[in-house]
Amino acid sequence: MNVTLRGRTEHFRTVAFDALNNSVRLIEQRLLPHEFQIVSTPDYRATAAAITDMVVRGAGAIGATAAYGLAQGARVFRGSDLKKFSKHVDLVFKTLADARPTAVDPVNAMIDVRRHMARGETVAEQQALALAAAEEFANEDAHHCAEIGRHGAKLIRNGMTVLTHCNAGWLAFVDVGSATAPLYAAQAQGKKFHVFCDETRPRSQGATLTAWELAQQKVSHQIIADNAAGHLMQRGEIDLVIVGSDRVLGRTGEVANKIGTYTKAVLAARHKIPFYAAIPCSTIDWNLKRGRAIPIEERHESEVLGAWGVTQTGQREYIRVANPTSGARNPGFDVTPAELITGIITPAGIFKPRTLWQNRHRLGYKI
Amino acid sequence: MNVTLRGRTEHFRTVAFDALNNSVRLIEQRLLPHEFQIVSTPDYRATAAAITDMVVRGAGAIGATAAYGLAQGARVFRGSDLKKFSKHVDLVFKTLADARPTAVDPVNAMIDVRRHMARGETVAEQQALALAAAEEFANEDAHHCAEIGRHGAKLIRNGMTVLTHCNAGWLAFVDVGSATAPLYAAQAQGKKFHVFCDETRPRSQGATLTAWELAQQKVSHQIIADNAAGHLMQRGEIDLVIVGSDRVLGRTGEVANKIGTYTKAVLAARHKIPFYAAIPCSTIDWNLKRGRAIPIEERHESEVLGAWGVTQTGQREYIRVANPTSGARNPGFDVTPAELITGIITPAGIFKPRTLWQNRHRLGYKI
Repeated sequence: MNVTLRGRTEHFRTVAFDALNNSVRLIEQRLLPHEFQIVSTPDYRATAAAITDMVVRGAGAIGATAAYGLAQGARVFRGSDLKKFSKHVDLVFKTLADARPTAVDPVNAMIDVRRHMARGETVAEQQALALAAAEEFANEDAHHCAEIGRHGAKLIRNGMTVLTHCNAGWLAFVDVGSATAPLYAAQAQGKKFHVFCDETRPRSQGATLTAWELAQQKVSHQIIADNAAGHLMQRGEIDLVIVGSDRVLGRTGEVANKIGTYTKAVLAARHKIPFYAAIPCSTIDWNLKRGRAIPIEERHESEVLGAWGVTQTGQREYIRVANPTSGARNPGFDVTPAELITGIITPAGIFKPRTLWQNRHRLGYKI
Repeated sequence: MNVTLRGRTEHFRTVAFDALNNSVRLIEQRLLPHEFQIVSTPDYRATAAAITDMVVRGAGAIGATAAYGLAQGARVFRGSDLKKFSKHVDLVFKTLADARPTAVDPVNAMIDVRRHMARGETVAEQQALALAAAEEFANEDAHHCAEIGRHGAKLIRNGMTVLTHCNAGWLAFVDVGSATAPLYAAQAQGKKFHVFCDETRPRSQGATLTAWELAQQKVSHQIIADNAAGHLMQRGEIDLVIVGSDRVLGRTGEVANKIGTYTKAVLAARHKIPFYAAIPCSTIDWNLKRGRAIPIEERHESEVLGAWGVTQTGQREYIRVANPTSGARNPGFDVTPAELITGIITPAGIFKPRTLWQNRHRLGYKI
């Protein structure tokens, strides 16, 4: 998407490949929203480290980063021995897969790249195919998000106010984003609307990343405390809710997403406000039979007990907000039942959550 | 309530009077939870400034502070001319009333003190009556809170987990508090229970003040992000919700309280978890006919865009968390309808919200 730096607007992807220098170019997300910087990883180990250290985060973005990283690693191999090359690629694969061991997207992306590589008969051919496959993976990610936007934009009418939660924006993907895609598409169509970004404590991704994205795209928006959405709905100030998701259960239509999503869905249902989750098909879990089986990560209490930000002298700092002798509970995600969800916006169209299974073949289901 | 300093436990009130030095002694609430300090205001102007600067906050606490401030101001008058004395007291009254012009408690408290003073026939008698009336006002505030505790403690059973929102603790009153009173009373009865404190963004009074109070009273507790309560209710981890209130409508049972209260009430109703507001009778507004008529203060956006806390080097600092080019909406309060409230805990007992009006004579209603 567009980023304006010193008055000049340029298009950036979250993740891109510099073939000349064989490096992966990433937006350094840990500096956002206070500083915009592109980093280049000189080799696949540095790319893996960027995933581990969360220079880049978000399902689509780390998938593409790993795909590029695999190509990057494959391309440095010198020689024509296919067996040795294959062993080298195994090592690259393992290094990148271990960068964030619980994430499924890097592994799936790299399996995809390797499948394409296998069609090559020489090392040079496989190296070329690796890069082509990684590029295709990244392009598809961006294309899927654009398709989410095309379908989702129909929900946004002139004068509407839309609530978002957390960040499922273009920074979490290669471009465009999932929950933000309908907003960007509607804006491109000239529609006028306003967005409330839940700040999304404890990590504040709404106040930092989503608000930064919307400001860069010049989408009218304001940040609100997570506590404020109920009141604004009660006063008729919210017309539509769109969130992303970490996992949608294809069999039940349940949506696992950042903590607080369930609360917003309950409020929206009470006020008869449409509530949508926007996702690429890769987010659908076709196996799990019930939301209660989704493991809810309990994160470190320091996230709840304080906050990261920038001091008046411009220094990045963590401050302790809470009483120093108190502890915290910090569940990272929650699960919203299908009954509270109006629809799931996917690249293949918008589906009622309980109809995902019957539409599974349109939604990329593979046995 | 008790405060433990360097291993020694002492009893403190939020507000007290030092008759020897004619000064009001206040817990410096702006330093909490990171530092505990008692400040003495040497004259009524300093007392008014302490109210303005929020050294002391909370309905009961600022009421008692103003009552003491009026006595403090009255007591410095030298001479026996009742007319001159009365003019002097008018000035003191006005100074303290202007300290927080939208608050009703200081004015009501001072009217009460003046009513008592009127029974005195000399300046000296009126001065003595002023102090006696202020002391009585403070004692009654503490007594009312203790009565709220006596009634509310019956709702708390062994093994329960109780959710609180914001701070309606003893720091907001002279002692004991309203929403916290049932907790302290239940603990005194030897009951075992756990409390989740909503951090209560944007001002974090739950994470700072309520958590500090509970830690000092050794009540088992944890802070949670405001986003987490829905998930914890869904998982059966919350049994009871008790909040305070800034205004309860006697005619409709609606409860105005800190932003986010309505959201918790909606969630509690969905999960059939009892939801109570605990208040002294002075919080009941017998005039207003509908909650929509309550003006909702829109506070400064800086509260949402950042946070106050302590850096690792121990410095108190405001940090900007949010994207620097984004703004915020910041409604300070919301209104919860009677249908979502199980009961109102008062010093006169627990009432269903829609029965306040028929019980108005037990609840201090005056025409």
